[in-house]
This record gives sequence, structure tokens and C-alpha cells, in this order.
Amino acid sequence: MKSFDQAIADAQRVTDAVLRRLIPEVETPEARVFEAMRYSTLAGGKRIRPFLVIACADLFDVSRSCSERVAAAIEMVHTYSLIHDDLPAMDNDDLRRGMPTCHKQFDEATAILAGDALLTLAFEVLAGDETHRQPEVRTELVLEMARASGARGMVGGQMLDLWAEEHKLDIPEITRLQRMKTGALITFSCNAGAILGRADEHRRIALNGYAHDVGLAFQITDDLLDVSGTAAELGKATQKDEAAGKATFVSLLGLERARDQALILADQATKHLEVFGEKGNILRDLAKFVVERRS
Amino acid sequence: MKSFDQAIADAQRVTDAVLRRLIPEVETPEARVFEAMRYSTLAGGKRIRPFLVIACADLFDVSRSCSERVAAAIEMVHTYSLIHDDLPAMDNDDLRRGMPTCHKQFDEATAILAGDALLTLAFEVLAGDETHRQPEVRTELVLEMARASGARGMVGGQMLDLWAEEHKLDIPEITRLQRMKTGALITFSCNAGAILGRADEHRRIALNGYAHDVGLAFQITDDLLDVSGTAAELGKATQKDEAAGKATFVSLLGLERARDQALILADQATKHLEVFGEKGNILRDLAKFVVERRS
Repeated sequence: MKSFDQAIADAQRVTDAVLRRLIPEVETPEARVFEAMRYSTLAGGKRIRPFLVIACADLFDVSRSCSERVAAAIEMVHTYSLIHDDLPAMDNDDLRRGMPTCHKQFDEATAILAGDALLTLAFEVLAGDETHRQPEVRTELVLEMARASGARGMVGGQMLDLWAEEHKLDIPEITRLQRMKTGALITFSCNAGAILGRADEHRRIALNGYAHDVGLAFQITDDLLDVSGTAAELGKATQKDEAAGKATFVSLLGLERARDQALILADQATKHLEVFGEKGNILRDLAKFVVERRS
Repeated sequence: MKSFDQAIADAQRVTDAVLRRLIPEVETPEARVFEAMRYSTLAGGKRIRPFLVIACADLFDVSRSCSERVAAAIEMVHTYSLIHDDLPAMDNDDLRRGMPTCHKQFDEATAILAGDALLTLAFEVLAGDETHRQPEVRTELVLEMARASGARGMVGGQMLDLWAEEHKLDIPEITRLQRMKTGALITFSCNAGAILGRADEHRRIALNGYAHDVGLAFQITDDLLDVSGTAAELGKATQKDEAAGKATFVSLLGLERARDQALILADQATKHLEVFGEKGNILRDLAKFVVERRS
């Protein structure tokens, strides 16, 4: 998987570069909010979502200068959600990607504002001329990102997650929670590539199916790592779900069945890629990576 | 000003109706976030921004079904900013529009998420087909709203406002703070009408000048009311700026000069409207209303 390792390193490097360009350092008194935005977006991370955007857009030979902007915009939305979820009023986490969370490094007010500003900037980036020369493509990106990240997607998923602290969820409910909380933005990352590439319905459905399975496999693996990984490996607190008495795929299925399920989903994900032939290999590798990763 | 009173009442009624339609009541476990979104957006308010959108769009005979959606989207952004600004980590306010603030009525986590979801939904509404049949108009609305409300606009203004708790600002600094914190979204409300109406450059500049002056007059009047009004009249805590040792237009200029300045700005605002002839009368009335209001 040498070319895959290279591709994921490339996605990380390029995402950092575009984020640095889109979030400038400023000298004005409100500089603190820009600093916090840069701190949290440039703190590393696997950059799975940017990778998916770029790899899916590559299937349709989209210009990298377009797909990289969309990749950065989606990473901004992902990062804003982490900043807000880490707040004391929410999950109250001190550590993220091995570093102090935004409100620990700065303060709560700045963290709230940095999250707000990242979400806003993400839409500004998608709507900008440089993202695609056709405005109907840009509006579709805005519309789909808003749907994926709002109250019927990611934000609703976080609300459900808080609700789950006092309600025992079953498998269908957890699946719905995860589809909203993490799945929607992962799915949008793949769909964004198809939107940029003006893909036909057949290919859109294929990528959507892939994204759906990879997203769930990703989440089950996260639950597995939460049980078996260490804080040092993951760069964040572990075993929080168990401590909070929250049902997860692992607590409901057991370790072995959860692992099997993740592998089945990863395998199923690759089956959606047949229509893309060899061009889909990088996405096949990603599906493997998602369930084999150690952090 | 009978027709003006009617117009402002109409803007309030229609904004409520559109918000009710765009933020549904749901039965799923994440219903709480929708409830909080409805609670805060439907808590009344003067609806100055929706009024401006609709009145400015009317200058260009834009269909009301378009301008009312944009009006509702801007009111969502305004409301999200109030919800987040009221949080304990920010201004820590218990009362807003005469009712408990969102985090008091619900809880902090829900308030953060309701704000996030309102901001996201606002972009979804702007990008939707029904907002305008031309996608280039919709992307321009998204782009300009993002610029007005992000780190270089409203969010940056709130960051500055927090910074001002420990720094004494002078008049140019306060003017810049207010242009970002409240002026940018008020200006966008007028510009949105021009964007929807595909106005020529000349008329765009005229509306922009009007918006700029009305926005500042609005803010100075807010500062005056903060000193002279009562919590019962205003539906929120008063004299907070003085208690926090914050410089305001009133503390720097004195009551009389601040009032004069607001009147001069309102008068100056109306001068920008000449190009619109009698069609601009409703906006002239608004400029008067902004500085004569009691709450």
C-alpha cells in the first residue's frame, strides 16, 4: 500500500497548506479568534474527509485546485464540531489530537467563536468562484454541506448523543445516531467529489453507498479503539463511553462481533466501487485502512 | 407613519410564518434542538433585518416569496449570534426579549447546538432553489452572508467586544467594533435586497451607504437606550456596558452628542435614497424609527 500511504500523506500536507492560506494570521485586536481557528485546524488529524473529497473528485478528473478547497472547507466543519463538542457544557474534553482542546488552550468564549467562524468560513469557501466555475455546482455543495452538518445531520447527531447519556439506545438507534453525527459529513465528503465532477446518477449512488459503509465501519472502529486503545495512541481520552454508561456498537455487539461487522462493512464498501474499475483502488485501500488503523 | 407601522408589523408576521415553516417541530429524540431553535427565533424581536431585506428587495420588485426566505435566513443568523453571545462563557445574560435566554430555558449544550444549527440552516435556506431561480444569485447571497457574519464580520466583532473588556477603545475603534458586530449583518440585509434584485452598481452603492449609516445610528441608539431605558422596556438587562467598564458611544461622546450623532446619521442615511425617489419612503421611515424607538 505504498501509493496509499503516499496519498494519505499528500492529503494531509495539502489540507494543511490550503487551511493555512484560507485562515490568515492577522494583526488586528480580534486576532485571537484567527489564532484559535488555526490552532485547531492545524493540529494534525487523519484528514480522512479531505482524502475522500480529493480521491472521489479524482475519479472524475476534477482539477485539484477545486477539490482541495472543498476538502479544506469540510475539514473546517469537522474541526468546528470537535471544538464545540469538547466544550465543558458538552463532552468536557481537555485533550484532542494529543494537544489541549481549544477552550483549554484559549478560553471558552474564544473556542465558541472559533467554531462559529470556521463553520461560516467553510460556506464562504464553498461559495467562492475558485471552488468551481459553475455557480450551480457551488450552490449544490453549499446545500448538501448544510444538510449534512445541520440539525438533521451532524448537529442533530450530537444532540442525540447527549440524549443517549440518559437513554439506553439499541442497535438501530445507535446506527441512526452515528449516521447523523459522523456519517453525514463523511458521506458528503464523497458526494462532494461527485458533485464537483458532475457525476451521473449511477456513479453518485455508487459513491453514496461506499461512503455509507465506510462511515459506519469508521465509527465502529472508533468504538473498538476507545476500548482497546490508549490515550497516548489516540491523542484523546479513552473509555469515556463506558464511563458515561453510553451504549456503543462494542457494548451492544461485543468486541468480536463489532470487529466482524466493521470488516464486513469495509468489504461491502469496496463492492460499490466496481463501476470505477482500477481507478477506485485508492478508495479500496482507504476502506481497509479505516478498519485496520491503530489510532 | 401608518403605512410604516403596517409594514413593520407585516415584516414581523411574515418572518414568524416563514421561520415556523423552515424550522419544523419533529418527533425524533433530537427534537430538543429544534425546540430551542424555534423558541429563540420565535421570541419576538423588532425584525429590523427582515424588514430591511424585504423593503430593499421591493425597490427592485423582487418576488416576496424570495425576499421573505432571505429575511428569515438573516434572522436565523442574528438569533444564533444572540444565543451564543448570551452564554455564560460570553456575556452571561439571563434575559432576552423579555424571556429566559436559550441556555436558561434549555441548557448550555442545547443552546450551543441550537445556535450552530440555526447558522447552518440559514445557509441551507439561501442555497435552496426557492430562494432565487438563478444559482449565481444564490451563491452571491451565501458568499456575502458568510463574509458579513464570520471572523471578519460579526464573529470578529464579538471577539473585539470581549477584548474591549480589558482595553479602553476610542471612537474609531468602537466604530470598527460596531461595524463588524452589528453593522455587517445590517448592511448585508440591504445588500441582499440588491443582490436578489440584480441591482446595478449605482443602486448597490446607494443602498450600501444607507445601510452603513442606519446600522451605526441603530447601534448608538442601542447604547443610549442601555443608559436611559429600563429592563422592562427593553426585555434585557440594561447598563451592562457601564458596569463592565466598557467604552460606548455614550460614554465617549456624552448623552447629548451621541443623540445628535444618531440623528445626523439617520438623516444622512436618507440622502442615499434619492435615486429611488418615492419608492424609498419606507426606508426613510425606517431610518427615523431606528433613532426614535423606545426599545
